[in-house]
Amino acid sequence: MSSIGQHKDSIAFKNIATHILTQGKCYQDLRVLCKTIGHRLSGSAQASKAVEWAEQTLREAGCDTVWLQPVQVPVWRRGEEHLALKFSKEGDFIDVPMSSLGNSEGTGGRLLKAPIVMVRSFDEFEQLSKEAVEGKIIFFNYPFRQDFAHTFPGYGDAVKYRWQSPMIAGKKNVAGIIIRSISTGEDDYPHTGSTKYEDGSPRFPAVAIGNKTADKLEKACLKGNTEAILKSECRMQGTAMSFNVIGEITGSSKPKDFILVGGHLDSWDIGEGAHDDGAGCVQSIEVLRAYKQLGIRPKHSIRAVMFMNEENGLKGGLAYADSALARKEKHVFALESDAGGFSPRGIETTMSKKQREQFKKYIPLFLPYGVYNFDEEGGGADVSPLKKQGVVVGELLPDSQRYFDVHHTDNDVFETVNHRELKLGAAAMAMLIYVVDQHELLD
Amino acid sequence: MSSIGQHKDSIAFKNIATHILTQGKCYQDLRVLCKTIGHRLSGSAQASKAVEWAEQTLREAGCDTVWLQPVQVPVWRRGEEHLALKFSKEGDFIDVPMSSLGNSEGTGGRLLKAPIVMVRSFDEFEQLSKEAVEGKIIFFNYPFRQDFAHTFPGYGDAVKYRWQSPMIAGKKNVAGIIIRSISTGEDDYPHTGSTKYEDGSPRFPAVAIGNKTADKLEKACLKGNTEAILKSECRMQGTAMSFNVIGEITGSSKPKDFILVGGHLDSWDIGEGAHDDGAGCVQSIEVLRAYKQLGIRPKHSIRAVMFMNEENGLKGGLAYADSALARKEKHVFALESDAGGFSPRGIETTMSKKQREQFKKYIPLFLPYGVYNFDEEGGGADVSPLKKQGVVVGELLPDSQRYFDVHHTDNDVFETVNHRELKLGAAAMAMLIYVVDQHELLD
Repeated sequence: MSSIGQHKDSIAFKNIATHILTQGKCYQDLRVLCKTIGHRLSGSAQASKAVEWAEQTLREAGCDTVWLQPVQVPVWRRGEEHLALKFSKEGDFIDVPMSSLGNSEGTGGRLLKAPIVMVRSFDEFEQLSKEAVEGKIIFFNYPFRQDFAHTFPGYGDAVKYRWQSPMIAGKKNVAGIIIRSISTGEDDYPHTGSTKYEDGSPRFPAVAIGNKTADKLEKACLKGNTEAILKSECRMQGTAMSFNVIGEITGSSKPKDFILVGGHLDSWDIGEGAHDDGAGCVQSIEVLRAYKQLGIRPKHSIRAVMFMNEENGLKGGLAYADSALARKEKHVFALESDAGGFSPRGIETTMSKKQREQFKKYIPLFLPYGVYNFDEEGGGADVSPLKKQGVVVGELLPDSQRYFDVHHTDNDVFETVNHRELKLGAAAMAMLIYVVDQHELLD
Repeated sequence: MSSIGQHKDSIAFKNIATHILTQGKCYQDLRVLCKTIGHRLSGSAQASKAVEWAEQTLREAGCDTVWLQPVQVPVWRRGEEHLALKFSKEGDFIDVPMSSLGNSEGTGGRLLKAPIVMVRSFDEFEQLSKEAVEGKIIFFNYPFRQDFAHTFPGYGDAVKYRWQSPMIAGKKNVAGIIIRSISTGEDDYPHTGSTKYEDGSPRFPAVAIGNKTADKLEKACLKGNTEAILKSECRMQGTAMSFNVIGEITGSSKPKDFILVGGHLDSWDIGEGAHDDGAGCVQSIEVLRAYKQLGIRPKHSIRAVMFMNEENGLKGGLAYADSALARKEKHVFALESDAGGFSPRGIETTMSKKQREQFKKYIPLFLPYGVYNFDEEGGGADVSPLKKQGVVVGELLPDSQRYFDVHHTDNDVFETVNHRELKLGAAAMAMLIYVVDQHELLD
């Protein structure tokens, strides 16, 4: 990289940052998405409204073309749900905050009453006899490890207790499952999220409780005589037609080569899906808007993709990759933002060693914006099917400290997103795309 | 630095981070400070309670010695205050959120009614004749520049309109001053903070309004016929005796050489002084507590200092430095945390070039904790008087995006502080002190 080239890039970066920080609309967009539509689980009426909103917002951002890509999505409905726990032999049943896990089965609206058996790990569960757990509600009490300096390793460590518990427990004919939320929060918000049963195994209820209730239940279980009464209506309800929403700026010299920037439009059915992943959607739109307003003409065609159904099926990511394959679209790079609208710190990618070394020459340009970490390996969930086709994928790495306090909870609302952090994340994405596009780093 | 030495440091860093993230008490300490004492302006009853709290908390943290250092502080009292604005000739006066600037004079409880003259800069004010502004209320409408990637440069740019406006305007016999708050917030919180009159000049009221009210007033002023009615009781009320609170761990090999870590105990008289600077206080205490609990024996004596009166006088910082000089105490390094309890990113210092190069060898140890920026020049306000004695000083650099949304407002409360961000900041401080102490980098 010549010093003249570096100087030109540095000016472009400054223009991008100034424009987005002072005139960016992503924060206002997020307010509209969160406050006029709210949460938007795949197949819901709100998800349909979000599709309309995304289409219109991408048009207003100045995209050359905007279109909807059909996606068949699974439909899961929550309905009413109540959990009451008895913390001691003599005590009364007490209602506690809870959330059924996504894709799980409810009690069909009937009362399920059963004793609770606490285990702290899958190993501990495996050591219990079938007789000891049959007909019982198993409390998987595995805490989120807070000793990691960043929270994603802790999430990666604990989330198996949300995802796999029904598969593991299903072998022994349990009546239901309660998990300690996959949460860093020093509070009592239950965190939902997808779970999975073994194919063909019986489907029993699986719910999450907040950390404070889990602490209380843990103490009670050590003394024995804990019981639960659960009533819930959640169930799978077939499939529905939905859409990915795509906006494109046509490339000036390589219009048939694509760079993708995206987030997912669906969210869980609690809270407002503000950080997860309204933030990624409005940031992706901001990238294209900034390019248009600043007159940056990309060499490659740049697409902003709002994926549908990341949360409980990934059908949008799969449909996009299938379409790209069928149409023989060459994707150069696919960047997702799905780790919250916090201050950007870096990017994880699947670049080869050689590509990464090439890219790292540009790090000094990013440092003034607090973006310094380009060493991590990984990429966003929605772009992972493209990775299987050999495309280099990536994900924005925002500061991770606050994410798992609010992730998949009623508390993931617009008010927890900071306007400057959100905008700076969009600016970092625009800068990253700029370097990959203008210097043809991954062609 | 040998690779064995580096490995040993790396283990020490990991132990510090794990201990503070999983067993640190700074977040609980902050809750107590904010919720049982609340805001604590110098000379107030709450400031006295905060002194007691700090002394007790430092003792419980295991300090070898804890003592109070007398500080004579100025006393400013707010009292009742009301501002009503008339936004058009025909309109009514409307009450708006406002905050008198710290150390400013009120209306003595009487009604001050005057037309408003808006200026956007000191230059613009200077160009107005005395006749044009005499007896008027001047609206200094200078917005916080949001185009900087970090917020402190924007604060540095705008804060002169809080600090100097009475000095500038006082020359032309104005009736009072309204400033647009020094704020990044997209809201209407007024931000207080110190201001200053020219010695011997008349003291007139000076108040801040929030950004939304300022936007509205700006529009109204462009049309003309704006008026204000102000009633306020704020005034200086002499001085009072107060204290810096100091806890110390005695050094093992250099007990007469000191390393200081600190924050300021006083706050403005609105909000709870959570980020500013409860955070810095509880983090400093955490450093000493972690050393004790982890069995780290520092070579130098380590002091945690809770300074009094940073906000409206700096008398604590001055008293500490005076005492150090009088007692011929050799200070090796003085680190302050006074930029909010956000995720740590780096440290600014007054190290010489040579010292900095030496120190930078240790950067790889900090990177896993997201702390990467050691290039900035500067140091905390309370330790700046030590700098004049030749001591190397520094300040923790947390992520700055959210700070000036809440700084000096009713919204600087415990709930805006994240437990992990606060703890990670304390860990970064403990690591930094560890390197400076164990490797005698600044001796």
